[in-house]
This record gives sequence, C-alpha cells and structure tokens, in this order.
Amino acid sequence: MEVIAAVKNRRAVKSFDPHHKMSDETRQVLLETAVLAPSAYNIQHWRTVDVRDPAQRAAIREVAWGQTQVTDASALYVLCADLNAWQEEPQRYWATSPQPVQDFVLPKLDEYYRGKPEVARDEAMRTLGIFGMTLMLVAQDLGYDSCPMDGFDFDAVAKIIRLPADFAIGYMVAVGKGTGNAWPSNREPVEKLVYIDHF
Amino acid sequence: MEVIAAVKNRRAVKSFDPHHKMSDETRQVLLETAVLAPSAYNIQHWRTVDVRDPAQRAAIREVAWGQTQVTDASALYVLCADLNAWQEEPQRYWATSPQPVQDFVLPKLDEYYRGKPEVARDEAMRTLGIFGMTLMLVAQDLGYDSCPMDGFDFDAVAKIIRLPADFAIGYMVAVGKGTGNAWPSNREPVEKLVYIDHF
Repeated sequence: MEVIAAVKNRRAVKSFDPHHKMSDETRQVLLETAVLAPSAYNIQHWRTVDVRDPAQRAAIREVAWGQTQVTDASALYVLCADLNAWQEEPQRYWATSPQPVQDFVLPKLDEYYRGKPEVARDEAMRTLGIFGMTLMLVAQDLGYDSCPMDGFDFDAVAKIIRLPADFAIGYMVAVGKGTGNAWPSNREPVEKLVYIDHF
Repeated sequence: MEVIAAVKNRRAVKSFDPHHKMSDETRQVLLETAVLAPSAYNIQHWRTVDVRDPAQRAAIREVAWGQTQVTDASALYVLCADLNAWQEEPQRYWATSPQPVQDFVLPKLDEYYRGKPEVARDEAMRTLGIFGMTLMLVAQDLGYDSCPMDGFDFDAVAKIIRLPADFAIGYMVAVGKGTGNAWPSNREPVEKLVYIDHF
C-alpha cells in the first residue's frame, strides 16, 4: 500500500478479531521494518515488549480501563525506551561508519545527553513516536489495523512487564484485524496548524 | 511508493539541492496528509513552522552547528507542540462524534492532563515523533528526501521563530532533493530490541 493511502486509511481501531492469528513471518517483517526508523544519533533506544501471554494481556487490560483491544488484538506492543542507551557503548551504533564520521558524531552524542536527563527523556518520547508510527504504517501495508494507546496506568504496566530502572514506557500499540469502525474524529484545517517563518 | 519500501529507502540525508523548488501543491499534500497522523485524544497539538524566509533559515543554521540542510533543503519545518491544546475547547476535537463518545472521551481527556505537565510534555514529544515520521514517509512517497534534526540550540531557535509560552519545540525536519549519500549507519538486530511478555 502506498504511503499516502496508508496514512489516509489508518484509523485508531478499537475492536479486533480475537481469533485472528498473525503469522510469525508477518510479526518479523513488522518489527524488522520498524527498526529502520530513525533515532537521534542512531542510538535506537526503543525496547519493545511483545505481549503474547494471555495472562499478561489480561493483567494489562485490567489497568487499561478494560479496553478490549488489549486482549483481542493479534499483537500488543508496549513501546519502551532505554534512557541510558546513549552511553551504552555508543560506538556500536556507528561501527559501520568511516572513522571521520565516528570522530565527529561520538563526542557530539555524549555532549548532547550527558547530565541532561530531561533531554534524554524528550528524545526517548520523540523516538517512540517515530518508531510506533512506522510500526502502524507498516501494519497498514501488511493488511492490519492498529491502535496507539496511552490510556492506561503506566506504573502498573511497568510492574507487569518488569520494566527495568532507567527505562520509560512511551505508549502501547495494538495491531490486528479490525472488526468495527473507528470512532469518527475530525482534523483541524492545515491553515490553523502551520505558521510561515514564525508564530 | 509502498510503505515498506519508503521505510527502507528513507535515510537521514544531510545534503540537499539548494536550487530545487518544491511546488505549492506538493507542500500542501505533504502537510494535509501529515495532519492525518494520530494524537492522543485527537488533540492535534502539533504546530508547525514552515521556515521559508532565507534570512530566517540562515539565522537557524547559525544556531544549528552550521548544518547545510537548514538552508539548502526545499522545506524546513520546525515541529512544535502547544502544551495546552488539551484544554483549548477540547470539544472541537470530537465535534463530529456521537454524543456518547464525546461524553466518554472529554472527561477522560481532562483527567489525563489536568495538573500533570510532565504527562502533557511526554505526550507532546510522542505526538511530534508520530507527526514527523508521517511527514518524512509522505515526503518519500512524493519523491523527496528528508532529515530529522535535533542538533541545534533549542532556546535560540525558539527566539527566532517567536515560540509562544507553553509551546515546546520537538525537532526540525528538512525536506528536499538529496544530493549526497546519507551517512552509513547500522541497526541492532531485532532480537536485541524485542522482549517477549516482559523484560
């Protein structure tokens, strides 16, 4: 499916066919493609929990306002970020680059994040947005519907998935075969959202 | 271009043809499609500054380590968020929905954000990630290259674009016709980034 069509067709679907199984091949393509999304300094700080165990799904649903997509979607991804990824052997993110690129990027990377936890957090949330949207559009291309979700108790989900210290949850993405229409919603006209040169 | 191909072809291009002009029609399609991206509670808090004035571009380049894509790309978008969008007549975001949907969503929306500025900020960054990735993939579909950028002095750019109080800058996206190869980079194997059921 072409990108523009995928963007237009994508809607936050709330009800999924609980009987549909996603093939292992599709699961692999979905994630292998999504990890090609960009991240600042290529630190790839996304860490995704693919929740398959029905008991885990049920536990999450309980702390997610009972939303049925948590248990009924074919896949449920909890998108997390490792807030310290920038300092975990960062040379490996640039190992395939020529030495001059590495020499330029690696000190910049350190300077960008060191001692600035709020910068690392903003960056993590941005990247999870980028990563998750890639995942949702690839899902659309593969014939699936999706739903981004942040309506849940973040602390409770962190416990359920055993989130390590210095990791943050961004949001969840449910992927599956939609069975109902998405809630209708509307968009502001572009003219109200775009400014020329300055506010 | 199909989504998966667009994701694979997209690279952070650092050099652009400074002579290429993007048509008004393309600019319109790019933004009109990007605003179909999802946002939590459909609050659409993205506010994009489309920097066209060469003097504004030059001023931004000075506080962005002199990176040439700032001046040479056909379009430069500073992706910002209105951190208070959640409380600005939020019923308008759901005006086309049936009354029961509105009655459910609107109190939830208020409860989600009220008194929690850090939640609003995380959400803004996530949404700008989602919005910007949509923009970059649509650009790819339209035959353009792009570069997401957060290597700049955020406070200095805020002054240049006259960022209002209670707005935040997420990052910038340059869009244009690439003239050079992107820096090579590598990706971690999926297996290192995906956990089953829990960490």
